[in-house]
Amino acid sequence: MEKIYRESLELHRRMRGKLEVRGKVPVRTRRDLSRAYTPGVAQVCREIEKDRNRSYLYTIKANTVAIVTDGSAVLGLGNIGGYAAIPVMEGKALLFRDFAGIDAFPICFEGYHTDFIEDVKNIAPVFGGINLEDIAAPKCFAVEEALQDIGIPVMHDDQHGTAVVILAALLNACRATGKNLSDITIAMSGAGAAGYATFRLLKCLGYDRKACVPVGDMVICDTKGIIHKDRPDLLQNKYKYIIAHETNREGRTGTLADAIRGADVFIGVSAPGIVTGKMIRSMNRDAVVFAMANPVPEIMPDIARKAGAAVVGTGRSDFPNQINNVQAFPGIFRGALDARATRITDEMKVAAAHALSGMVKEPKRARILPGTLNRKVAWVVADAVEKAARECGCTVEIG
Amino acid sequence: MEKIYRESLELHRRMRGKLEVRGKVPVRTRRDLSRAYTPGVAQVCREIEKDRNRSYLYTIKANTVAIVTDGSAVLGLGNIGGYAAIPVMEGKALLFRDFAGIDAFPICFEGYHTDFIEDVKNIAPVFGGINLEDIAAPKCFAVEEALQDIGIPVMHDDQHGTAVVILAALLNACRATGKNLSDITIAMSGAGAAGYATFRLLKCLGYDRKACVPVGDMVICDTKGIIHKDRPDLLQNKYKYIIAHETNREGRTGTLADAIRGADVFIGVSAPGIVTGKMIRSMNRDAVVFAMANPVPEIMPDIARKAGAAVVGTGRSDFPNQINNVQAFPGIFRGALDARATRITDEMKVAAAHALSGMVKEPKRARILPGTLNRKVAWVVADAVEKAARECGCTVEIG
Repeated sequence: MEKIYRESLELHRRMRGKLEVRGKVPVRTRRDLSRAYTPGVAQVCREIEKDRNRSYLYTIKANTVAIVTDGSAVLGLGNIGGYAAIPVMEGKALLFRDFAGIDAFPICFEGYHTDFIEDVKNIAPVFGGINLEDIAAPKCFAVEEALQDIGIPVMHDDQHGTAVVILAALLNACRATGKNLSDITIAMSGAGAAGYATFRLLKCLGYDRKACVPVGDMVICDTKGIIHKDRPDLLQNKYKYIIAHETNREGRTGTLADAIRGADVFIGVSAPGIVTGKMIRSMNRDAVVFAMANPVPEIMPDIARKAGAAVVGTGRSDFPNQINNVQAFPGIFRGALDARATRITDEMKVAAAHALSGMVKEPKRARILPGTLNRKVAWVVADAVEKAARECGCTVEIG
Repeated sequence: MEKIYRESLELHRRMRGKLEVRGKVPVRTRRDLSRAYTPGVAQVCREIEKDRNRSYLYTIKANTVAIVTDGSAVLGLGNIGGYAAIPVMEGKALLFRDFAGIDAFPICFEGYHTDFIEDVKNIAPVFGGINLEDIAAPKCFAVEEALQDIGIPVMHDDQHGTAVVILAALLNACRATGKNLSDITIAMSGAGAAGYATFRLLKCLGYDRKACVPVGDMVICDTKGIIHKDRPDLLQNKYKYIIAHETNREGRTGTLADAIRGADVFIGVSAPGIVTGKMIRSMNRDAVVFAMANPVPEIMPDIARKAGAAVVGTGRSDFPNQINNVQAFPGIFRGALDARATRITDEMKVAAAHALSGMVKEPKRARILPGTLNRKVAWVVADAVEKAARECGCTVEIG
């Protein structure tokens, strides 16, 4: 790890950041200036003044996404603040550009503050979408919720990007192992941003695009163990309250080991090394294990496989079955921008997951998803998301 | 004008805006991703967490400027709001890039609101400077003032960019006509953003870099006529109150014609066509006329010359002696960024004006400033501004 840290620091120092803002039109001659700037530009302003949605036709809005953070939950580094978060947000912008041709720009707030939601809303005019990034749970839920009606898609990627790739991976892992999603029990470790969104997508919305059939059952753990209806701390966190009432049909209590016992699928969106081979051996046969903690997963793939897991996926590129947000967010925003969507609906997320899983025609246990460097993925996902947006009619009308 | 409006609209429609955000580093391979993004980037975050000023070393901050507007005074179009202002802000960003290699990004607020100042402050982390643009007077003065201590340079270009190029033009116009700035009387039409800043630069700070010698006298008019101490409306506008007490030594009252009579210099930063040949004839001999209203000046150059003006300048490119902000703001911000300045001081502005005027070794009546398309200007101005910033010590220390 030391070497990659040195190399990364050196790259950042040499380049002074990873992004640049360039012009798409020439400004060499007076004529150029008259068209791109004054006096010609006045006419463009007048057109947009008549209908602000014409900004989609004449400005960068149609292809521009803000990557917004308060730096409160950056990578595994915690609440390091908006300045220290800049390099991550720039990296995210690189991926938006490279995978989906989107102009993404980082907006880093120094930290969370009372007017955070209003602030994000106030800078919206120039953006066609907002990707919330690295905002701590449970604050991230309220922030995203409050921004759903501002007229452009606002999505917290740590939540829904993760949930979408997990659903896609799960669809194909079940196909590879002959499981039926309506029958399985999933044990999940983690009830933060990614955990809650994954719970919602699998359990409340369901895995099927049309019929909305939920997975069989889920048992979800946080750091205090299994979330169940009788836990006294639920009233302080409405999201865990909802989890308690929508999962854990048998009313299990206890630790993560108790949750995993007899489960068909384990999903880890939590902390490194907390799952043992013994726990995996207590699962049903042909167990599916997604250990997504990054860079060190909940259980290392070789240990999980040795303990009998049939399918093992992680967030890492150096093991088979990488499951990573980059398979989702570029395509989701590309499709939303192309549809001029006003929001990213649950249907669009489910459509994204199905498009992603559909890219592997015959899933094998060691190959459930397309590679994360596969440049086709974003465009296939985008097509499905754009279509879903048009079907639900949540798109901008231009007068 | 019709034709350029059509062409501009067509250009904007075809290109969907004028800017793009591109990556400066590759993200094609896993190794690329590990260095530019996770896991390598974590080390860069940790470095900045130790000292937030290291963001100048490792992120886009060192070369990035926000162009911030509330859309309340856009070109001659008035308060058209943040959406309709986007094309102008994009155009400004083009100029920053093309003239000074600066990455500039438009941040358009829907309109002015109570928390505007806080909002601008909150988005500062990723920016090395903020260019305030097209914000109405007198609000723009308070906004700029309130943002002077946020640690990065904040400059309202409509004020200071204009004031700097006017000072530069005036220095050379006086050289070309043999006038002494300490002796002249200037009649000025306009006491808004540009007018007030020009008044401050010429009258309070003075035109001399070291000695701070103010110009002889100024008589300033707004739409109600000459600003003088006995006007009953001064208490509603502290900026006009200051003007009244620092100008108009003889206590003149009356109209613009009364202000111009006997003046050595006329500066117009106001409205089209309000100055007549007769008024110009009432000025002192070898009169200097800067009619900066754009696109239609206070008086057309041929009329002013026919009425005896020795030097005539306008904001337009189709007449001699173009005087335009683009000769100032790219170099001012370039110099401020290169010095890692924490603010743009009055000394830096005066230095910029002297650098600009110094580019014409022997000013002639028909050639007082370098051409607005001259690509050397910004870099000469930048050198002077960077030097002035270092001299005043208002630069960021990196730990």
